Amino acid sequence: MPVRERILKTAVDLFWRYGVKSITMDDIAKELGISKKTIYQHFNDKDAIVKEVVEQELACEKTDIDRLGAESRDPIEEVLKTSDYVQASFGTISPVLLHDLKKYHPRAWILFQKHKHEHIIQGISGNLKRGIEKGYYRENINVDVLARMRVEQIEMAFDPTIFPPQKFSLVDVHVQLIHHFLRGILTDKGFTIYNTYVDKSVIESNHP
Amino acid sequence: MPVRERILKTAVDLFWRYGVKSITMDDIAKELGISKKTIYQHFNDKDAIVKEVVEQELACEKTDIDRLGAESRDPIEEVLKTSDYVQASFGTISPVLLHDLKKYHPRAWILFQKHKHEHIIQGISGNLKRGIEKGYYRENINVDVLARMRVEQIEMAFDPTIFPPQKFSLVDVHVQLIHHFLRGILTDKGFTIYNTYVDKSVIESNHP
Repeated sequence: MPVRERILKTAVDLFWRYGVKSITMDDIAKELGISKKTIYQHFNDKDAIVKEVVEQELACEKTDIDRLGAESRDPIEEVLKTSDYVQASFGTISPVLLHDLKKYHPRAWILFQKHKHEHIIQGISGNLKRGIEKGYYRENINVDVLARMRVEQIEMAFDPTIFPPQKFSLVDVHVQLIHHFLRGILTDKGFTIYNTYVDKSVIESNHP
Repeated sequence: MPVRERILKTAVDLFWRYGVKSITMDDIAKELGISKKTIYQHFNDKDAIVKEVVEQELACEKTDIDRLGAESRDPIEEVLKTSDYVQASFGTISPVLLHDLKKYHPRAWILFQKHKHEHIIQGISGNLKRGIEKGYYRENINVDVLARMRVEQIEMAFDPTIFPPQKFSLVDVHVQLIHHFLRGILTDKGFTIYNTYVDKSVIESNHP
């Protein structure tokens, strides 16, 4: 792997595990067994690495989530599959990561906000509309209101002032919120489909 | 009414309608037909008025909401009654109010946050526990997670960056979120009760 890609890969690993603030250029160099000078040949500063890492991760996430949508048999399965995917990612992410981005890396944070509005809210709205069309979601939901609320829930799960990591596990919070969200929009017909998925789901059976 | 109380009452009216930032001591004096000097005999600055206004309003809200709880036949009716009460208040509140408090009046904002943690989250948790006990709410909800999520939803409805007032009505957002929240926690038994209330509700029948 070229050194530039190795730097980015190592940075992602470290940022995801420890957040961004606590990781220095020294830490990245040490982890790679290269000199800091080599890193600076490719990146002006940590902020440049952070921005590129976030860009790559968001693009990758979009591809993954689009694929999950295409592979799903119906909008309910799509939500549950996406949720499993997000949970798997959450497992490896430090809860302070979003907080660090917001506070110390505004350029990367703006990318994240743009992604949120252009892709995540659009994606959720699309799912809601398809679910209503199929009669699985209530007709009287306001798609725009609930899509925005849902995206805020995703961010909320990461917010240590709302869910302090000493007290709450990110995965637990996420599972609670996604099942609550889905149940809140289902019709009777939708519940029938939902229950067939939940019965099979290991995650749900861990929360009897 | 003594002049001190008249100042507070007028300040509440103006703040609620226009937010805090855009209202000056001059505006308050003018509205009351008194001199600014008279206001300064009672309050050091606008921040002192804001703090006292918020204190009074929160105490008043707590009394009202406790009373609504005591008057309700079951936890579901309690949620719906509280929701109607909050909506009635929302109708008279400028959407920029909480935003102004957070940004320009940290002392009042801290009061609000304290109230949120000591009373609102406790109140919601109590409701959730009573609902589970009666078999109206699912046993497998995490009370602490959902109570915190719900209180964030209440704040979210006020956030102009999430729900721009040009595009969303505060009451619509609130109605969507409260019914979604309730549906997300109900058992079949709970739905039976919920439906009897919703059939009667004017608000819900406006959103068929």
